[in-house]
Amino acid sequence: MTAVRKMIILGIDPSLRSTGFGVIEVKGNQTTALCHGHVKNPPTVLPSRCLVRISDAVTKLIGEHSPEAVAIEGLVYVQNTRIAFTLGQVRGVIIAAAARNDLPIYEYAPRKVKQAVTGLGGAGKTQVGNMVKAMLGLREIPQADAGDALALAICHAHNCRGVQIKPPKQI
Amino acid sequence: MTAVRKMIILGIDPSLRSTGFGVIEVKGNQTTALCHGHVKNPPTVLPSRCLVRISDAVTKLIGEHSPEAVAIEGLVYVQNTRIAFTLGQVRGVIIAAAARNDLPIYEYAPRKVKQAVTGLGGAGKTQVGNMVKAMLGLREIPQADAGDALALAICHAHNCRGVQIKPPKQI
Repeated sequence: MTAVRKMIILGIDPSLRSTGFGVIEVKGNQTTALCHGHVKNPPTVLPSRCLVRISDAVTKLIGEHSPEAVAIEGLVYVQNTRIAFTLGQVRGVIIAAAARNDLPIYEYAPRKVKQAVTGLGGAGKTQVGNMVKAMLGLREIPQADAGDALALAICHAHNCRGVQIKPPKQI
Repeated sequence: MTAVRKMIILGIDPSLRSTGFGVIEVKGNQTTALCHGHVKNPPTVLPSRCLVRISDAVTKLIGEHSPEAVAIEGLVYVQNTRIAFTLGQVRGVIIAAAARNDLPIYEYAPRKVKQAVTGLGGAGKTQVGNMVKAMLGLREIPQADAGDALALAICHAHNCRGVQIKPPKQI
């Protein structure tokens, strides 16, 4: 009998005011959620301090769950470069926190994530939330950003199993 | 006799492969460079690891020189959002390193910096380098990114003296 390999993945959906996170454990065909939530940064907190809070939260999650990989949302469409700069700043502290712990970081485009979870690249938030709930056997639909983060982790798990088409680029 | 207040400023010009830095000390009318250089990240280093190296370098500079403020290049024109994301990531780790040390961070647009140093918003790299050399009494023209970082620190010093027009927004 071959021992079933256990794989822990941390998914992160970056955003300055509400970064979603989700940790999943994959063991054979069984996928469970170890934890999920979002880092809430009220509008009163300076952007620079939000970055520290996000960085600390990611570092804490890595310390607590020892994931072997981090899956992060890839480059999304943004209306202007100012938003790209802001989102880039958040991505920067997350990527650095993972790299500091020698973890490989993989990017997945939103379409790929939706496809991996619902089978549809153009799926809506509710569809993603419902599927994440069903796939992980959660009692409730997770908070939207946490749900997206869990979907990212699931997407990476699929990819490792060879379900997805193209391997993602490590950043 | 009133004691002349000493002010130490860290200027940073963010870039993934070559982040410029410069620390200046302002004492009355005298401005001197305490250190300057650039964090060189060869193309073989993964972007995620570059971010850690930049973050560590900034943290080390803060520890060594105890600046009271950080001046960083503001949002620059970029050709596409992918570049904005990459530059944003670098900015993120720099801003977080400063915020983690409870330092105020100020952004200055490239035009403002050039104007503060040369009197011309459209000044070229060579003009900026020459003026930085003259203003700080350096023996040689600093490396381009280090020169831009020193210019940023000088720009913030001018601003604190009330030479500049509009106060920058703290981020």
